[in-house]
Amino acid sequence: MTTTPSTDPVSAAPSRFAHDTAVRSTGDSRYVGEVTSGWAVMEGGAPNGGYLMAIAARAMGATIAADERGPNRVDPVSVTAHFLAPAVEGPVDIDVEVVRAGRRHATLHAAMRQDGRECVRLLGTFADLDATGSDDVRVDRQPPPYPPVAECLDFTAAAIAQAEDGGYPPPPILHRFDHRVPHELAGWAVGRPAGRGEMGGHVRWYDGAEMDPLGVLAVLDCYPPAVFNTGDGSLGWVPTIELTVQLRRRPSPGYLTARLLTQAITAGGYLEEDGEVWDAEGRLVALSRQLALAAR
Amino acid sequence: MTTTPSTDPVSAAPSRFAHDTAVRSTGDSRYVGEVTSGWAVMEGGAPNGGYLMAIAARAMGATIAADERGPNRVDPVSVTAHFLAPAVEGPVDIDVEVVRAGRRHATLHAAMRQDGRECVRLLGTFADLDATGSDDVRVDRQPPPYPPVAECLDFTAAAIAQAEDGGYPPPPILHRFDHRVPHELAGWAVGRPAGRGEMGGHVRWYDGAEMDPLGVLAVLDCYPPAVFNTGDGSLGWVPTIELTVQLRRRPSPGYLTARLLTQAITAGGYLEEDGEVWDAEGRLVALSRQLALAAR
Repeated sequence: MTTTPSTDPVSAAPSRFAHDTAVRSTGDSRYVGEVTSGWAVMEGGAPNGGYLMAIAARAMGATIAADERGPNRVDPVSVTAHFLAPAVEGPVDIDVEVVRAGRRHATLHAAMRQDGRECVRLLGTFADLDATGSDDVRVDRQPPPYPPVAECLDFTAAAIAQAEDGGYPPPPILHRFDHRVPHELAGWAVGRPAGRGEMGGHVRWYDGAEMDPLGVLAVLDCYPPAVFNTGDGSLGWVPTIELTVQLRRRPSPGYLTARLLTQAITAGGYLEEDGEVWDAEGRLVALSRQLALAAR
Repeated sequence: MTTTPSTDPVSAAPSRFAHDTAVRSTGDSRYVGEVTSGWAVMEGGAPNGGYLMAIAARAMGATIAADERGPNRVDPVSVTAHFLAPAVEGPVDIDVEVVRAGRRHATLHAAMRQDGRECVRLLGTFADLDATGSDDVRVDRQPPPYPPVAECLDFTAAAIAQAEDGGYPPPPILHRFDHRVPHELAGWAVGRPAGRGEMGGHVRWYDGAEMDPLGVLAVLDCYPPAVFNTGDGSLGWVPTIELTVQLRRRPSPGYLTARLLTQAITAGGYLEEDGEVWDAEGRLVALSRQLALAAR
């Protein structure tokens, strides 16, 4: 590349995420979108699951937004995706079913396919997060005790610099985010794992766009597997079987703080990855959990 | 009642749970079952969500067990239920769709209806837990630090005794379980909440039956809402929007140890309830999370 991104990623450019997750109705609760190449973990590899989930959730929200039975319930307060087959770059279609349209919540079911081959099946309940107010009732859970942004490693810039020095090219998805990672959690890539199943840090879009609720779905799946930080030596593929996200609020502007934890790898290689996302005002934005399989 | 259950509930009786969750195929991936009155939180009230989930999961497992494409993948390694309307005592039918039947995992989708009215929609991935082995790879997560069974309150016996002394009749679902609850977590009912969003204790079937993986689904939804122990004074209805369970192993015989935690009640009354179940050998059996709404 002759032009490399600036280390200050904030710009007035239109949102890459909004563009790459756009869907278009073709009638009968069917939507089409385009899986782009910029969200893969490896060059030419399968796109990130959280990104796929965001495309589908956009179609689900659009379906209920167009329904005459109620208000703009476009935010998934709980959405579950089961990953059936790897997706590829190219067109995708999403068939959405309105399971129930209630006064406050709508439940939707969706199937995402490429060339007739189903890759993701989803079930979710949607609401209008702007209508729920912003005052928390009680949050015993606290944000992760990470150092402030300025004391974290500019992980994205470091990876780009390393590539320019002849190292491995950073994964395409790394270019989507401005990652500021606590040094303790960044050492796994150079043989200094933290010794527990944790990934996380401060994160925002690389292009400086505002983070919307659907962007949070991508954030919750954008880190390397938390199990890479256990120090058990396995850095192999950790395919996601199922990912569920609970969205609690629209994030305020600024960096989000995300933490992903794996605390139980059990027989057969099954593991959970529990995520949480907080906004710059210290408010809980989302919780997530996935079931994945550790490489054996 | 003239006959009251013994305080030693172990007997050779056939399993009440197996009877009350039985399903019968009527062909075309459709099953019928019977919602019985013994699983309600209030006499004559709606049956417990985990119980309904177990009926549906039994139909989903039966569907894939009858599929020629693979082995007995009858155990839900991850199953999500969205609750659409309260169920009532009486017949129920479950329509199951095989979304994908892979070598190790099968993904199934199901709709549970009563008289044509849908009450639960489910999506799950099933496997054969007996085929995954029993040796855990790594479990940093530890069982809850509860006192042993003998030092806990025999909550079921206490509730029955209280009713015989002229108190409120215990909820029907309480008779399904033999509950041994740490004293600290049992005081909420008499005005001494623990001061945090936690419920839990040791638990087994009241009739002494062996606990199968589907029984764990009912266990994970059988406690009063964890939020009742915060001391915030709200003891109102906490309807479940969505419940997801990850099953990791078939439990060993003996008491299970369950813990349910609510740590974030946010704007609009949304809260999570995170559950975990361990078996008598100290092994992780299941994790769960639900999204629910606190009464306002």
